[in-house]
Amino acid sequence: MKTLLKGGTVVNVFTDELEKANVLIEDERIIGVGDYSEADADCVHDVSGKYICPGFIDGHIHIESTMMLPAEFARAAVLHGTSAVVSDPHEIANVCGSEGIEFMLEASEGLPLDMYIMVPSCVPATSFDESGAELSAADIDPFYRRSRVLGLAEMMNYVGVVSGDKGVMDKINSAKAKGKVINGHAPLLSGRDLDKYVAAGIRDDHECSSADEAKERIRKGQRVMIRNGTAARNLYGLIDLFDDPWNRRCLLVTDDKHAADLIANGHIDDIIRLAVKAGKSAVTGIRMATLQAAEAFGLKNEGAVAPGYSANLAVLDDLDSVSVCDVYHLGKKVVSAGKLEEFENPKISAALKERVLHSFNLSSLCEKDFHIAASGIRKCRVIDLVKHQLITEEALLDIDFSNNNGVDTEKDILKLAVIERHRNTGHTGLGFIRGIGLKDGAIAASVSHDSHNLIVIGTGEADMAFAANRVRGLGGGMVVIRKGSVVAEMPLPYAGIMTDSPASDVAKQNEAVRESVHALGVPSDIEPFMTMAFVSLPVIPKIKMTTHGLFSSESWSIVPLFAD
Amino acid sequence: MKTLLKGGTVVNVFTDELEKANVLIEDERIIGVGDYSEADADCVHDVSGKYICPGFIDGHIHIESTMMLPAEFARAAVLHGTSAVVSDPHEIANVCGSEGIEFMLEASEGLPLDMYIMVPSCVPATSFDESGAELSAADIDPFYRRSRVLGLAEMMNYVGVVSGDKGVMDKINSAKAKGKVINGHAPLLSGRDLDKYVAAGIRDDHECSSADEAKERIRKGQRVMIRNGTAARNLYGLIDLFDDPWNRRCLLVTDDKHAADLIANGHIDDIIRLAVKAGKSAVTGIRMATLQAAEAFGLKNEGAVAPGYSANLAVLDDLDSVSVCDVYHLGKKVVSAGKLEEFENPKISAALKERVLHSFNLSSLCEKDFHIAASGIRKCRVIDLVKHQLITEEALLDIDFSNNNGVDTEKDILKLAVIERHRNTGHTGLGFIRGIGLKDGAIAASVSHDSHNLIVIGTGEADMAFAANRVRGLGGGMVVIRKGSVVAEMPLPYAGIMTDSPASDVAKQNEAVRESVHALGVPSDIEPFMTMAFVSLPVIPKIKMTTHGLFSSESWSIVPLFAD
Repeated sequence: MKTLLKGGTVVNVFTDELEKANVLIEDERIIGVGDYSEADADCVHDVSGKYICPGFIDGHIHIESTMMLPAEFARAAVLHGTSAVVSDPHEIANVCGSEGIEFMLEASEGLPLDMYIMVPSCVPATSFDESGAELSAADIDPFYRRSRVLGLAEMMNYVGVVSGDKGVMDKINSAKAKGKVINGHAPLLSGRDLDKYVAAGIRDDHECSSADEAKERIRKGQRVMIRNGTAARNLYGLIDLFDDPWNRRCLLVTDDKHAADLIANGHIDDIIRLAVKAGKSAVTGIRMATLQAAEAFGLKNEGAVAPGYSANLAVLDDLDSVSVCDVYHLGKKVVSAGKLEEFENPKISAALKERVLHSFNLSSLCEKDFHIAASGIRKCRVIDLVKHQLITEEALLDIDFSNNNGVDTEKDILKLAVIERHRNTGHTGLGFIRGIGLKDGAIAASVSHDSHNLIVIGTGEADMAFAANRVRGLGGGMVVIRKGSVVAEMPLPYAGIMTDSPASDVAKQNEAVRESVHALGVPSDIEPFMTMAFVSLPVIPKIKMTTHGLFSSESWSIVPLFAD
Repeated sequence: MKTLLKGGTVVNVFTDELEKANVLIEDERIIGVGDYSEADADCVHDVSGKYICPGFIDGHIHIESTMMLPAEFARAAVLHGTSAVVSDPHEIANVCGSEGIEFMLEASEGLPLDMYIMVPSCVPATSFDESGAELSAADIDPFYRRSRVLGLAEMMNYVGVVSGDKGVMDKINSAKAKGKVINGHAPLLSGRDLDKYVAAGIRDDHECSSADEAKERIRKGQRVMIRNGTAARNLYGLIDLFDDPWNRRCLLVTDDKHAADLIANGHIDDIIRLAVKAGKSAVTGIRMATLQAAEAFGLKNEGAVAPGYSANLAVLDDLDSVSVCDVYHLGKKVVSAGKLEEFENPKISAALKERVLHSFNLSSLCEKDFHIAASGIRKCRVIDLVKHQLITEEALLDIDFSNNNGVDTEKDILKLAVIERHRNTGHTGLGFIRGIGLKDGAIAASVSHDSHNLIVIGTGEADMAFAANRVRGLGGGMVVIRKGSVVAEMPLPYAGIMTDSPASDVAKQNEAVRESVHALGVPSDIEPFMTMAFVSLPVIPKIKMTTHGLFSSESWSIVPLFAD
């Protein structure tokens, strides 16, 4: 079956030229670019006046953070010209281990975009995490035999790399020996420590926030992934990298992307569009998001409109607005005039689905599980949120336990619980948090980085217990509770972090949950569930809550609640 | 063992910047680039005022064409900053098959430069060639397991690729399936045929002679190897490729390089130097010859001065003159202030050496083997040389066999013989050649592309037989004979195409042989042995001599000597 795309202008990512040329496709591949005619093809698509560019590649994304299954993510992303994503199933692996990765492989088979997988390198993220699984080098290695597995995902444990930790180096050396890519994640690492990190074989990073930081990486041989997702938005900080020579060593990634943002603003197309608005060249952006992404991952036949390359194409109505009209994946038209061609969901084996849909292993909870055994006024370590940032400060506050076991909504001091939910150990970290603004009820979620234990913030023990049990009952999700009833909720039954709903429903539910929290007093510029999801991540400074209690990144240890 | 290179300026091939930085090496690798000090190292080399660039990589060379064994080639090449060559042992494979490739692997083990191997794709070059071996896809495949084997060498049979010949496609598909590189060789291929050739997975070419030809390749996704060797010199024709965006998809190669040229002018350094003289940037040239060559072959840790990269470095006194002062290979100083650090020759197993040193399988010859059975005047097809080109024309001339069996030195019509020498079949092609200018005696050689049979050009049967027997007696070489005695000779006992003499001796002997031929009447602007070596190559138009007789590339068949 031969298809001709006729009359268009090809974006040549090898030369940055715009070439008037017809594109001839046979089955899954491009076989010619030039003066081919109707006589050469079985089927002709007129793309006169349009631009044909390679389909976009997102070099680093966590699909779980979209809260959608891969198929639903694909339905939303291909509309924006995405042909491939390199995904790191770090979240589901922290819940379900190797089976979680298997699930993602099965759930992304045969989609209208290529979903490549990097095997999570840091499960659990730290030894203080109680995750649902641990992945050693021996657990990781078998995945490298799978054709869609490209390497080892973001090596967040840069301390382990720099210090030469054996478990960490085993994973790195095994990936290197097999010729696999190793992604980096080492914000602000510089100088000698960066040299050590790069020398270990980690040749990219997506955590750069300033052009100076990024330029040091590039000089040392790393590729820089310019990240602009829903939460972390580094494009403007790194906009200079679109200039020569820097752009040659960069690609475009989203890392985390939420459904509403994906629908409203787009995906990789959005990053290019924003760069064009900031005065940069669309062709440079397209090259970064296609050929250079493919080269970074050793994908020899992806990322260009040229003979022998996969017929993964985004046809644009206009170059500078990156307005995606048609999308081809492996020669098949998957988007026509902005409309998705429907496809069947991948078949997932029953056992894997069962495993992922039953990731909760936790007995039901009661009020006393949220009670802190203390009386009178005690000086406590309180997690003090910093607005619009993931880092927190430690506040030493006098907590009056005689009143509502220390909760004081006037002073915005709320109770916080992180409950181990993978092995029913009963481990629960209890303490206080300031800066959320909730005046009534409780919120709970099973999305809590990186171990995705059950996290609850509330104004009272009854609502906290109710909220926790409700999330447990849903098999995962986000809930808002007031006076013993559900105000809003979003079920996330897949590993407690994803739903099988389509993007539009995910966006709506997410919005409803958020709105309901604001009605309970949380200021409109605070995203309580996103904030809460990072309160349990020990690797981010300075003080976080784990299932073992408060963790200080400064002392790199569990610290007591009481400071008196 | 840590070594510091202190005070130099690093040529950063990622950014094209010149950076004042110290380079810290541990054992074989660079571990840091920056403000390292004496305190960090066991050993310090002051390179103040000098430039530190990655060692140069020749992306395509036939070592056999230097007539030197790999060790002697290395002794000459490392002085010019060469750290790696990607070699195609096509010549020895045509003589000794797989054993020839094994020999080259053993003979290049542990040298002060990395000798990578591409497995010859076209042994024999055509079905009309009587080579010493045939290499099928099954013969080639086992070599891909060897760490220094990077892929399939230049696919000269572009007709076979374009037409989808099974044997050819088997070799290509096997290399592709194993993720190996496939080098191209398809001069002047363009348009739809080029699309087919590239679509097969052949992503480079070194045969481009004009910028327009090269630009079409680059647009279609091929890398262009800018070739400037001893014989084919394409630099000036391709000099525009040093400009943006073209230089990003180019590397520098020599293909064929002779000892005298290597000693007098240099290697890859010479190409960069010539480009600088033509107004181009040295840094661009260095980038093409290092990082880009490494990327083309998937050599992840080669071609840059950066943490984790092999400590293969060329230290230059001056950038624009590319004057190589010191050279490091895997952290070891192999050239100091322009002087080679001596090293032992690689050990070669006795059986392989024996095989290669006894590549002649040919009974001794006598005058009548060079006699053409004809009488009177006959119209004959005569190979008409085109000065300074490898192509030939066919002349239809009246040959008077009554006089010296057709030889006429007045009209410069000499006798030509190509004698099968691998299996003693007795196959001999006999005919005439015009344009050499030899007035007396005979010349013979076992260097004759691509099958390296025994080729003889002479003014009489006695001297031709003597010359042929002399080459046979040497086990290979080039000889100049006059009146039954040796005027000059160069033994090439290794597969009949190489010697174990050092470069300076090879250059001298080669010069002596050439000079002696000029004394016998050959004009000074003709290189008779090089010309003769291509008279037997059927793939080059228009008419050539094989062991089966004259071959016409126009009819792609053996054609009779007599045209009347």
